[in-house]
Amino acid sequence: MAHHLQVIAVGQALGAEAITVWLADGSSYPGQMSLRKSFDRVLDCLRDVYAALPAGWRLFTEHKPYEPAFYATVVQDWGTSLLLAQTLGERAQCLVDLGHHLPNTNIELVVARLLGAGKLGGFHFNDSKYGDDDLTAGSIKPYGLFLIFHELVLAERERLAGFRPAYMIDQSHNIKDPVEDLLQTVDQLQLAYAKAQLVDHAALAAYQESGDVLLAERTLKDAFETDARPLVAEARRRAGAALDPVLAFRASGYRARVAAQRTGGGYVPPQSL
Amino acid sequence: MAHHLQVIAVGQALGAEAITVWLADGSSYPGQMSLRKSFDRVLDCLRDVYAALPAGWRLFTEHKPYEPAFYATVVQDWGTSLLLAQTLGERAQCLVDLGHHLPNTNIELVVARLLGAGKLGGFHFNDSKYGDDDLTAGSIKPYGLFLIFHELVLAERERLAGFRPAYMIDQSHNIKDPVEDLLQTVDQLQLAYAKAQLVDHAALAAYQESGDVLLAERTLKDAFETDARPLVAEARRRAGAALDPVLAFRASGYRARVAAQRTGGGYVPPQSL
Amino acid sequence: MAHHLQVIAVGQALGAEAITVWLADGSSYPGQMSLRKSFDRVLDCLRDVYAALPAGWRLFTEHKPYEPAFYATVVQDWGTSLLLAQTLGERAQCLVDLGHHLPNTNIELVVARLLGAGKLGGFHFNDSKYGDDDLTAGSIKPYGLFLIFHELVLAERERLAGFRPAYMIDQSHNIKDPVEDLLQTVDQLQLAYAKAQLVDHAALAAYQESGDVLLAERTLKDAFETDARPLVAEARRRAGAALDPVLAFRASGYRARVAAQRTGGGYVPPQSL
Amino acid sequence: MAHHLQVIAVGQALGAEAITVWLADGSSYPGQMSLRKSFDRVLDCLRDVYAALPAGWRLFTEHKPYEPAFYATVVQDWGTSLLLAQTLGERAQCLVDLGHHLPNTNIELVVARLLGAGKLGGFHFNDSKYGDDDLTAGSIKPYGLFLIFHELVLAERERLAGFRPAYMIDQSHNIKDPVEDLLQTVDQLQLAYAKAQLVDHAALAAYQESGDVLLAERTLKDAFETDARPLVAEARRRAGAALDPVLAFRASGYRARVAAQRTGGGYVPPQSL
Repeated sequence: MAHHLQVIAVGQALGAEAITVWLADGSSYPGQMSLRKSFDRVLDCLRDVYAALPAGWRLFTEHKPYEPAFYATVVQDWGTSLLLAQTLGERAQCLVDLGHHLPNTNIELVVARLLGAGKLGGFHFNDSKYGDDDLTAGSIKPYGLFLIFHELVLAERERLAGFRPAYMIDQSHNIKDPVEDLLQTVDQLQLAYAKAQLVDHAALAAYQESGDVLLAERTLKDAFETDARPLVAEARRRAGAALDPVLAFRASGYRARVAAQRTGGGYVPPQSL
Repeated sequence: MAHHLQVIAVGQALGAEAITVWLADGSSYPGQMSLRKSFDRVLDCLRDVYAALPAGWRLFTEHKPYEPAFYATVVQDWGTSLLLAQTLGERAQCLVDLGHHLPNTNIELVVARLLGAGKLGGFHFNDSKYGDDDLTAGSIKPYGLFLIFHELVLAERERLAGFRPAYMIDQSHNIKDPVEDLLQTVDQLQLAYAKAQLVDHAALAAYQESGDVLLAERTLKDAFETDARPLVAEARRRAGAALDPVLAFRASGYRARVAAQRTGGGYVPPQSL
Repeated sequence: MAHHLQVIAVGQALGAEAITVWLADGSSYPGQMSLRKSFDRVLDCLRDVYAALPAGWRLFTEHKPYEPAFYATVVQDWGTSLLLAQTLGERAQCLVDLGHHLPNTNIELVVARLLGAGKLGGFHFNDSKYGDDDLTAGSIKPYGLFLIFHELVLAERERLAGFRPAYMIDQSHNIKDPVEDLLQTVDQLQLAYAKAQLVDHAALAAYQESGDVLLAERTLKDAFETDARPLVAEARRRAGAALDPVLAFRASGYRARVAAQRTGGGYVPPQSL
Repeated sequence: MAHHLQVIAVGQALGAEAITVWLADGSSYPGQMSLRKSFDRVLDCLRDVYAALPAGWRLFTEHKPYEPAFYATVVQDWGTSLLLAQTLGERAQCLVDLGHHLPNTNIELVVARLLGAGKLGGFHFNDSKYGDDDLTAGSIKPYGLFLIFHELVLAERERLAGFRPAYMIDQSHNIKDPVEDLLQTVDQLQLAYAKAQLVDHAALAAYQESGDVLLAERTLKDAFETDARPLVAEARRRAGAALDPVLAFRASGYRARVAAQRTGGGYVPPQSL
């Protein structure tokens, strides 16, 4: 609790308007803890955090199926996260980390359910093939990322009540330059968003209504197959940014410059959950 | 809707007090249907079914991650099932089929969450290694079955509000004699229940409280390692049933007798979801 | 054996040059069969099939992790398929069905291993999200399909010894028109192949050599992000086929015409494994 | 290579007769490395290690599907491990870590295949529910552990050629006392082995032959349901060890005694893969 209150204070100083609570609580062996009481204890603490929220702030509960607990994590899936957010109140919503799901989970469906319940708080973007791999967004399942953004664009177009997702990147940059990886990630997210905007929604709705499965699917696929790289690059250029951020960063010499200024030892790679 | 109303009428004639709704609704391709609208349509129909419930009846919503829909099933997990049951009302609860979960799901944790929310309606018992395999209960993961019954025994001992689970068997008997398989299944469920009753709850609670992970785990494991077969057999005998139901059934000659009486062709294996 | 010999005879009449053997052999319960002896029996039978191969023919062994057996399938993965093909001889190779893998399998890595061992026989193309879903190729994981074709293009460019894959489609067309689905599938395979040809192999090799992970990855992604639809359509047009096969098929009136000519009842959907 | 040669030298000093090679080699992004060339490089190095094996030594290759590489590990499964061991020679065999498998893998089937190929080198024992969780052996899937030992007992009884498995424990003891956890692990392995010895092999073979699936399965289950704790405890007592090793260890005061003697700081938990 003390830590959460401190985080809120720091957040206020920084101009934040939300706090994400991911808890490592859980057990690694059957019998180690009561499955129900441990949930109650987490809920009790979150009530205090919720009560301490500054005006206008939201609280996001974040689920994860395992790790560091290897038998039963307390907030193991979006169902438990939803129970917490429902009990806490209107300003509590659920955060979806793209890597915090069991194998084969349909993540865009989880997003749609949370949207429908008015409880989608936001995202931790990354990608993964096996577990919580924290790879660059879009690097493994780019079509899945597009399908998630398709749900977000639908919600945006409908002006869905309570739709105000917070976007965060939660990745582990240990074999790419972290700055370059962030630049690449933003590019991938912009590509997925741009392609989701290219969907012909009128045609899609008509094919869904008439039951034309093939053309309904193809309507999404056509948007995805479109090369959105020039569009995204030009949008960046008009916003005063680089056409190719990674190459621009490399050409800038920024890393060498700040590395030379840095004191206290070599590069320490950031850690991520 | 017409079918559901008919099922309720049949159920009343048979003395039933609950209806389980498992729906095949879903899509096999991205774009085929709206992820949110299809949920709303299911909910709308279930409202009518719920309104038609006879006095004293409960409605169970049952989730399944895939099959026959292979991209997005409408009631794909317990989170969606919970949303339905919460919206419908107090007499709506969630049914857990042991085979309707994504790989690596901690099913006893799902049971604990539904118990905590007052929404555990009941079970479809079976076992599986890969998907919805509908094998004999306890045949693949007997310890997991025991851990589920441990949660049920805990709820029973606490007289948890709303705890009144309905127990059903939902298996596909295609390589064992169906009657024998049912007898074996009941035996397996009785074994798991008996072992769960053997847990030393006072010791378990004390080890959990003191953080003695090893002995807390061992308290559960000790109950599971106990040979409960004699206890279960004797309980059956005292209830006027067979010590060994499968061998008694084989010795009885019942199958040959009724097969000889049966008209209209050979054995037709039952279908199961 | 009799059935296999008959299939070979039919294949000869049809001009085939290979036979694929997928066997349902396996067990649904521990203890049901000997795990090692059942493998030996399958191998013994395949020796006879192999001995009966006409000149120039190949035999493909096909693995599948489960279904219809739900505990232990005899040829459950590519490792077992490889053991069979190695023992049978040079003309035995392994067939990869894209849906016959455990969750999270890296299929392009399996393809690479079989290529390296000279044992890649061919493919059953389809796509899936959960199990052996037999959906349209490329409909769920289009980037994964591209990565498989990237391995094939690499082998082709190297003129890898024994590289002569047989391409087959193995899908279940039950919610799309089967002919349209086949047309869509071929288009998806052509797209994946075309994109794999667009990879800048010199740049890729250089980035791999210098350890530039980001640009190596981006080299593949750039090919994948390229809109290859016009290229593939134009290639089809030059080959005398339709720019848009599905729409051309719909416009042709072919289905209505042959349906009117057909006697013996309504449309019977094809079954697939 | 230098490290491997040093490890062999250390092993000789310690009286070891085998070396296990688990390599972290792999890539986290598509395109990062050549899938085939990276295998060839690993194989080339292992040839040198194999050539450096002292007389009588064996080399074990160990597979793992992911972690630390999150896209394509070089030795990702037993199929690749088998390819390496086959190429290296007779003294190369495959090591099976129980936690190094994709979701839903039938591990006893992998063991049976390696046994059949004469390539089972040994085990890293542990248990897991999600990934490479490195929990106490038998703590999550005790029936699975029993089924693995059943395969080992079958091989032992048949005096299968080349059957000489090396048994190791590879766990991460971070929420239990490491010494206690090792004692508990050995007890669990002894229990699984004892139960596997209790299987009525004549009955099992007869039921398998006659196709009596239910009684074949029950023959295994009956051995598993038997309470083998007294047998294992008595065997330990006769061997001069404790009836209950964990409680004996706690009663001995050993930990406090050596902790008091230890210099150089507090307890440092061991690391495990």
